[in-house]
Amino acid sequence: MPGRSNRQIHLAAHPIGFPKETDFALIEKRVPQPTDGQMLCRTIYLSLDPYMRGRMNKGPSYARGVDTGDVMVGGTVSQVVESKLDGYEVGDFVLNGNGWQEYGLSDGTGVRKLDSSHAPISTAVGVLGMPGMTAYVGLLHIGQVKEGETVAVSAASGAVGSVVGQIAKIKGCRVVGVAGAQKKCDYVTRELGFGACVSHLGEGLPAALKAACPEGIDVYFENVGGKVFDAVIPLLNNFARVPICGRIANYNDTEPPAGSNQVTRLMGLALVRRLTFRGFIVFDHAEHEADFLRDVNGWIRCGELRYKEDIVDGLENAIPAFQGLLRGKNFGKLLVRVSDDPTR
Amino acid sequence: MPGRSNRQIHLAAHPIGFPKETDFALIEKRVPQPTDGQMLCRTIYLSLDPYMRGRMNKGPSYARGVDTGDVMVGGTVSQVVESKLDGYEVGDFVLNGNGWQEYGLSDGTGVRKLDSSHAPISTAVGVLGMPGMTAYVGLLHIGQVKEGETVAVSAASGAVGSVVGQIAKIKGCRVVGVAGAQKKCDYVTRELGFGACVSHLGEGLPAALKAACPEGIDVYFENVGGKVFDAVIPLLNNFARVPICGRIANYNDTEPPAGSNQVTRLMGLALVRRLTFRGFIVFDHAEHEADFLRDVNGWIRCGELRYKEDIVDGLENAIPAFQGLLRGKNFGKLLVRVSDDPTR
Repeated sequence: MPGRSNRQIHLAAHPIGFPKETDFALIEKRVPQPTDGQMLCRTIYLSLDPYMRGRMNKGPSYARGVDTGDVMVGGTVSQVVESKLDGYEVGDFVLNGNGWQEYGLSDGTGVRKLDSSHAPISTAVGVLGMPGMTAYVGLLHIGQVKEGETVAVSAASGAVGSVVGQIAKIKGCRVVGVAGAQKKCDYVTRELGFGACVSHLGEGLPAALKAACPEGIDVYFENVGGKVFDAVIPLLNNFARVPICGRIANYNDTEPPAGSNQVTRLMGLALVRRLTFRGFIVFDHAEHEADFLRDVNGWIRCGELRYKEDIVDGLENAIPAFQGLLRGKNFGKLLVRVSDDPTR
Repeated sequence: MPGRSNRQIHLAAHPIGFPKETDFALIEKRVPQPTDGQMLCRTIYLSLDPYMRGRMNKGPSYARGVDTGDVMVGGTVSQVVESKLDGYEVGDFVLNGNGWQEYGLSDGTGVRKLDSSHAPISTAVGVLGMPGMTAYVGLLHIGQVKEGETVAVSAASGAVGSVVGQIAKIKGCRVVGVAGAQKKCDYVTRELGFGACVSHLGEGLPAALKAACPEGIDVYFENVGGKVFDAVIPLLNNFARVPICGRIANYNDTEPPAGSNQVTRLMGLALVRRLTFRGFIVFDHAEHEADFLRDVNGWIRCGELRYKEDIVDGLENAIPAFQGLLRGKNFGKLLVRVSDDPTR
């Protein structure tokens, strides 16, 4: 690889509000050389996920942010192209964290080998990876879902929401999705088998959601915040649980939205209805990973759980793809194919 | 008793905002006659508690409200004065629900006999009753408190808060109270042994609370809402838990308070800090009652847990006493001594 170029996308500026193209910079570097104990990995799939918006901010959050001038972070599926690291050979597929670049070095920390005969390698950053595990932990362990309950999930066709709803269905729940475009709602009901899916576009959401949840909502899996959250709140039943996984509607806010949406009212309701609002982050729940992989693999194999990928080609398209993700333009788990996938 | 009068306090009107004297009516009725399967109980202690404000409202809450013209509800310690009910004899002390009146009939439903040699009978509506059990369940089961954590509790000298803080101390936590008057703060630190107690009067609360919690707050036991809640929020640590027991600062609100206190900001924080906000009501947790009675009795006996009663004499004083409760005027568990306590 020496002499070949390694294209990278750096954070050029901490965005104020919605990330602009100029907040990123596409840079060409030389492909680095692995030293002893390192391997060089070629990025095949870069996963784009909403959490990345948080990492672009200055100031503390639950994980270290990206500094300006640094390569944007991100989970990747890669192939080993050069190895001076025991246990890894050229050609191996790995789940690693190359970030937004074509090649990256690794000493093996946090890397997992992938068996391409077992499942498509792209699923390691999707349904069998962080988004799938987020759904699994959030619904079962944070949400404590029980058979016969009504589960509502926002971003229902997305990487997390689609798995949440399907697991809820497997567990014997009635599942109501919330999504945007009609084709997403259709996919959620027709392909994934949710009981209903209502659109958050237009003004009809509160009434449509109420009609779709005649027995109220027992678990609301929160991915989006904003007006979907507002529409859900009055429908929460006694002892409802609200795993808070994401609030994408608010990630680009520069100040808190005004309105009737008051903490006091919400907490009063939390008391009277014995609600649980619980924030969680998947990395805190690694103890469930083995169960997650066993269950989800099994469900995929027997056709009970489906997934959809939205694949964009070329690292240079990561920026508009990420902007689209923040606007809900993607349809399914968003991936950037940075280089050829030799298994497809 | 026939021919004797039974004074009662009825709800005269559903209050709008702070309850006025004219929202109540003091009525004289004849003492009723027990029929077969009933007993007549003379009220000794009427417990006054913040939840009663909620019962005075029109419209649904977690329990049926009081209709206008009905006797105000309330837990009482009574003595049997006439019995046509198997298992109860004249002279027996009972925990029952006479409400705001001097005499009441009972068929034994929900009644518990009290052993006056075991503990002062008034404690059955206080430290060994609903308020104590609320503290126990809320801190241990909802709050999941762990040794070494910092526990903050509002209304710290009150019937619930004083028990929360003392149990937290017994469990090896650092305890910080929030109360109003200086004498309450002094009581909480000097008599109950909290590590600190800050006053919510004046403007200094956020800074004082921050100074009193140098390692942040792991469990905030929420009794009051309002500006105490606002001051606590920025101090919550990762994985903090907020059992929501009461919101007395807001019980008389006629509309939601304006301000910076936004759901969006709070839920964003809940996510990043993995917070749990969980509303609860003690009646849902009856399975812990035996443990509660065993533990708290033991702690009282060995001097690890103290309690304070604020006793007002005469049913007619229930109204100003209740108004005072809503304004934080009481100091300790508020009781109305409706008739003589023959055990004291």
